[in-house]
Amino acid sequence: MVEGGKVQIIIGSKSDRSVLKGAIEILEELGVGYYLNVASAHRTPKRVVELSAEFEKRGVAVVIACAGLAAHLPGVVAANTTLPVIGVPIDAGPLGGIDALLSIAQMPPGIPVGCVGIGAAGAKNAALLAVEIIGLQDKDLEKRLKRYRQQLSQAVLDDDLEMGE
Amino acid sequence: MVEGGKVQIIIGSKSDRSVLKGAIEILEELGVGYYLNVASAHRTPKRVVELSAEFEKRGVAVVIACAGLAAHLPGVVAANTTLPVIGVPIDAGPLGGIDALLSIAQMPPGIPVGCVGIGAAGAKNAALLAVEIIGLQDKDLEKRLKRYRQQLSQAVLDDDLEMGE
Amino acid sequence: MVEGGKVQIIIGSKSDRSVLKGAIEILEELGVGYYLNVASAHRTPKRVVELSAEFEKRGVAVVIACAGLAAHLPGVVAANTTLPVIGVPIDAGPLGGIDALLSIAQMPPGIPVGCVGIGAAGAKNAALLAVEIIGLQDKDLEKRLKRYRQQLSQAVLDDDLEMGE
Amino acid sequence: MVEGGKVQIIIGSKSDRSVLKGAIEILEELGVGYYLNVASAHRTPKRVVELSAEFEKRGVAVVIACAGLAAHLPGVVAANTTLPVIGVPIDAGPLGGIDALLSIAQMPPGIPVGCVGIGAAGAKNAALLAVEIIGLQDKDLEKRLKRYRQQLSQAVLDDDLEMGE
Amino acid sequence: MVEGGKVQIIIGSKSDRSVLKGAIEILEELGVGYYLNVASAHRTPKRVVELSAEFEKRGVAVVIACAGLAAHLPGVVAANTTLPVIGVPIDAGPLGGIDALLSIAQMPPGIPVGCVGIGAAGAKNAALLAVEIIGLQDKDLEKRLKRYRQQLSQAVLDDDLEMGE
Amino acid sequence: MVEGGKVQIIIGSKSDRSVLKGAIEILEELGVGYYLNVASAHRTPKRVVELSAEFEKRGVAVVIACAGLAAHLPGVVAANTTLPVIGVPIDAGPLGGIDALLSIAQMPPGIPVGCVGIGAAGAKNAALLAVEIIGLQDKDLEKRLKRYRQQLSQAVLDDDLEMGE
Amino acid sequence: MVEGGKVQIIIGSKSDRSVLKGAIEILEELGVGYYLNVASAHRTPKRVVELSAEFEKRGVAVVIACAGLAAHLPGVVAANTTLPVIGVPIDAGPLGGIDALLSIAQMPPGIPVGCVGIGAAGAKNAALLAVEIIGLQDKDLEKRLKRYRQQLSQAVLDDDLEMGE
Amino acid sequence: MVEGGKVQIIIGSKSDRSVLKGAIEILEELGVGYYLNVASAHRTPKRVVELSAEFEKRGVAVVIACAGLAAHLPGVVAANTTLPVIGVPIDAGPLGGIDALLSIAQMPPGIPVGCVGIGAAGAKNAALLAVEIIGLQDKDLEKRLKRYRQQLSQAVLDDDLEMGE
Repeated sequence: MVEGGKVQIIIGSKSDRSVLKGAIEILEELGVGYYLNVASAHRTPKRVVELSAEFEKRGVAVVIACAGLAAHLPGVVAANTTLPVIGVPIDAGPLGGIDALLSIAQMPPGIPVGCVGIGAAGAKNAALLAVEIIGLQDKDLEKRLKRYRQQLSQAVLDDDLEMGE
Repeated sequence: MVEGGKVQIIIGSKSDRSVLKGAIEILEELGVGYYLNVASAHRTPKRVVELSAEFEKRGVAVVIACAGLAAHLPGVVAANTTLPVIGVPIDAGPLGGIDALLSIAQMPPGIPVGCVGIGAAGAKNAALLAVEIIGLQDKDLEKRLKRYRQQLSQAVLDDDLEMGE
Repeated sequence: MVEGGKVQIIIGSKSDRSVLKGAIEILEELGVGYYLNVASAHRTPKRVVELSAEFEKRGVAVVIACAGLAAHLPGVVAANTTLPVIGVPIDAGPLGGIDALLSIAQMPPGIPVGCVGIGAAGAKNAALLAVEIIGLQDKDLEKRLKRYRQQLSQAVLDDDLEMGE
Repeated sequence: MVEGGKVQIIIGSKSDRSVLKGAIEILEELGVGYYLNVASAHRTPKRVVELSAEFEKRGVAVVIACAGLAAHLPGVVAANTTLPVIGVPIDAGPLGGIDALLSIAQMPPGIPVGCVGIGAAGAKNAALLAVEIIGLQDKDLEKRLKRYRQQLSQAVLDDDLEMGE
Repeated sequence: MVEGGKVQIIIGSKSDRSVLKGAIEILEELGVGYYLNVASAHRTPKRVVELSAEFEKRGVAVVIACAGLAAHLPGVVAANTTLPVIGVPIDAGPLGGIDALLSIAQMPPGIPVGCVGIGAAGAKNAALLAVEIIGLQDKDLEKRLKRYRQQLSQAVLDDDLEMGE
Repeated sequence: MVEGGKVQIIIGSKSDRSVLKGAIEILEELGVGYYLNVASAHRTPKRVVELSAEFEKRGVAVVIACAGLAAHLPGVVAANTTLPVIGVPIDAGPLGGIDALLSIAQMPPGIPVGCVGIGAAGAKNAALLAVEIIGLQDKDLEKRLKRYRQQLSQAVLDDDLEMGE
Repeated sequence: MVEGGKVQIIIGSKSDRSVLKGAIEILEELGVGYYLNVASAHRTPKRVVELSAEFEKRGVAVVIACAGLAAHLPGVVAANTTLPVIGVPIDAGPLGGIDALLSIAQMPPGIPVGCVGIGAAGAKNAALLAVEIIGLQDKDLEKRLKRYRQQLSQAVLDDDLEMGE
Repeated sequence: MVEGGKVQIIIGSKSDRSVLKGAIEILEELGVGYYLNVASAHRTPKRVVELSAEFEKRGVAVVIACAGLAAHLPGVVAANTTLPVIGVPIDAGPLGGIDALLSIAQMPPGIPVGCVGIGAAGAKNAALLAVEIIGLQDKDLEKRLKRYRQQLSQAVLDDDLEMGE
């Protein structure tokens, strides 16, 4: 399912979709539309270039690219756009995702990628970072984000009270 | 020296300043104003909170926080703002900065930090990622960024020609 | 459940509680009271500061802070107190806890954290280290600790005899 | 030079002494006496046992043990005392001290060691953690420590001001 | 300097050239022509695609791509050709090249890259692996390679004799 | 089962066979014959030498050698042939295969091995790299490989469309 | 069960016994008697010293010491004997045994330990290395070892034939 | 220079010789003769087999094999002898020798190698481990070794006294 929006999510293969569940819930909860595409830096390099060219037409503001192993997708997308790109390393092999983390975080100077943590936890943070960026131009969204952060905070405070009973 | 602007740079100690040289040149070349502050998540925790509260008054849009070792500064700043925070791991000890990289990238879900590469190369990319984010609201800056990227590209093409002679 | 006492345990989220089972058994066996709170360095940064301010009123002598991933909680607590802080890295992600271990152990100079091993084994040792510290002022506790150590020793000697049969 | 005192420092070889410079300055500045001994877990195992037996006679409250490579000294000392032991991993070989860090931090349950960071930065924090522990029974020392922390904090604030000029 | 030939070498930046010295000596000693181009997967992504399209016209049989940090160049080239691609990880940052090694070796299934060792030693082996591949169709080259291997072997035997004197 | 052919696969023990399933499917789908042998660099060193001597008689063009732990098999085979050798690191122990990856990729200069990724994903890429090498002399195979790559690409494009429905 | 013999096996806790199964089968198959004791470097340091003093009376020639995490047992035994000590790192925590491997292999100069691989595979090799050492003085044992090695070799050759059917 | 003796040292290349300085001093001080040969598992595989066949004629009891990077030499020698083989990983590349350490320590079951620490410190321990093994049959050597150990011990005690002055 693809909804139009400010966030463009790209995964390298359909099997990576499960890692996005929490991230998509955050975008939907905060009312941020998104596109979701499958495109592989290695198997469909031209498609990645074409897709990158479409970002501006689609009105995309932030790109979230997810990949495992030698995770080149975020860097390759970043090479084809001047929109901010957030990379999500996926734990897709026997090394626990440290391969993907280094392949995303250690981009050479000139073409930036903002790397978040490995796996579903990282994907959630990618969604929140995208919301923070979009929120710079959308005061309503910024308010919803602040409310979301208060809820996160309240949940911890509630857990603390519950622990004390 | 501190110039007002859209980018807030924070370093944990004065000695981290050298890692920022290239990053600051990029901001200055692209005409993006910045604040530069020293504040330590561990030695001046209150100051980090106060500074975070000032971001909005200053009109800051993006925060770049640099730290080495158990690099908590970017995460602690992110906990105190809903502005996008970019973390720069610094190679400040015998482990080559992998400690700082993991301490920044592996943020738990809820409070995002976008981590770039280790050291001066990462700091340059932090500046460029900040420019990409600010460029979403500033078409002139976006144009200057695209020109900068073309220059980067041209430099590689020139190197290729020179190699061929 | 929270009992008053000399040891303050803090976990970053309720789900980290399971890692504390053995640690709490040790404190209870040795008769050391403890407070157990949930507080997150990232989701409830103010609460961590407030809680740290309460340590002295509560009569706390030692703090045990547990966290996974980019485990900032022990360092952030340490920044807000001059009580000794023991950090327990939790194996909460795909990297086996090495991220949390480095985020705790590699504290920059000035604000110390004593890091123990990863997970439940480390949490037990955090409890024992807290007991050793409190035992400096409590000769009865020190005796109970010495007896505990003799039991540990005896259990190994018994296992050795059993193996020989 | 050996001064009597509450802190017992042990290094595995004379060459490790340089790593202690900043740590000793902190102890001297804060007025905490210390013993400094060379004893090797591997070359002088009996001496380590004898030395551990002397801690109580000397009135030692906290032990700081420093070692590199397969850094067994802190754990071996901890096995022979119920005083709190702080381990300092030293960067003494080609692996940057990660070997020593794991050899100290990953102690099996039962015999705790509080591990600080690698090298001179870690040694300073070992001294400060020792001061925090001794300060629990010495209100004057605790005050001096709080003043020290304020100075640390002030130094960062001063650097920040200087940067702004 | 670019000589026509069966081997296409690509480096991501001019500064990577020094790592190739021994590799180029091997190609020249064994009489294998090569093209040397600078092209960056990130700064000149289109140029990498164009260059890949030229491989067949140039009569290239094997590609050697060298890159450091998040070393995407070999994988991106491999995505644009069905010629065998050999990747050389370069030690270009504080992590000793393990980042580049994982970014090259851990390619996802479908698009292969043959990864050699880090740095100049690896680059020499990339040249020799290219020679082995080209030698499958060139019996004279295969002979020269076998002679080269005998010389390598003889050098070790000579060193052994010399040591024995 | 052993079919004659251009590719020689060697595994160090029968239990490694499962990692080859996808690789063998690729060779069979693309019509590339292969030999499959079990030979251990450590338990049957002479057999490895004999087998290497048979490669040319068998008409083998490329060798794929798979091994886990201290994975010496690819390097030992490479020392006994001038055919191109591709090494597949297997995830056969508690370190996730990083031991095998380093034991294969970090070959000293003089005797090359092209290392692919860890496990079944890497084995598939080894098969494809072998096909690319053999395809240099077999235009029909090269066409089949290009069709295979188009199918890979089409599968991603189809997944993308399906995601959009 | 403890049989007298030339090999002394020591494990740090009863739970480590399972890792020894294959090792003990090898010793029994090759007719080498062994002692098996439980003794902990940390929980029973005196017992380790006493046990080490008994080695000569028992006629022990080689010691095999197994431990996980911060695996100090082999080094501590080595410090108390001049018999050859073989260390077996055990995969007893979330880091896959790399902590134990470094804690055993990286012994400082002066007191040697021969480290084998992690876990049951390593334990088997410890047994075989002990047999090799004892075989230097026992020609019959050396013959049985050579026969064992031929069987290992034959098993691989048989697997190879079976694969070819 | 080659002296006949009980210990056979093999290095993979002449440049590895410097790492042996301290090891050879130990052998000479303790009066243990040794052979020193250069032989490469990769460049001179036949020579390694031939050399292994000569061990018994030479009266060799223990083999010390040193190698860096993908350090196959100790394992390959072990595959060709039933004498005990000690492997010394050398820090010969940008990864600090962790590659060599894993390539030596993680030998698959059946063919043991006893791995010591990385570099010159490890090489000294290899010499001492060889002396311990040979000392099992040579009471005079065992006495000299015990005296050497006492000197090591005394040196630490002297350093301790000196520190106390």
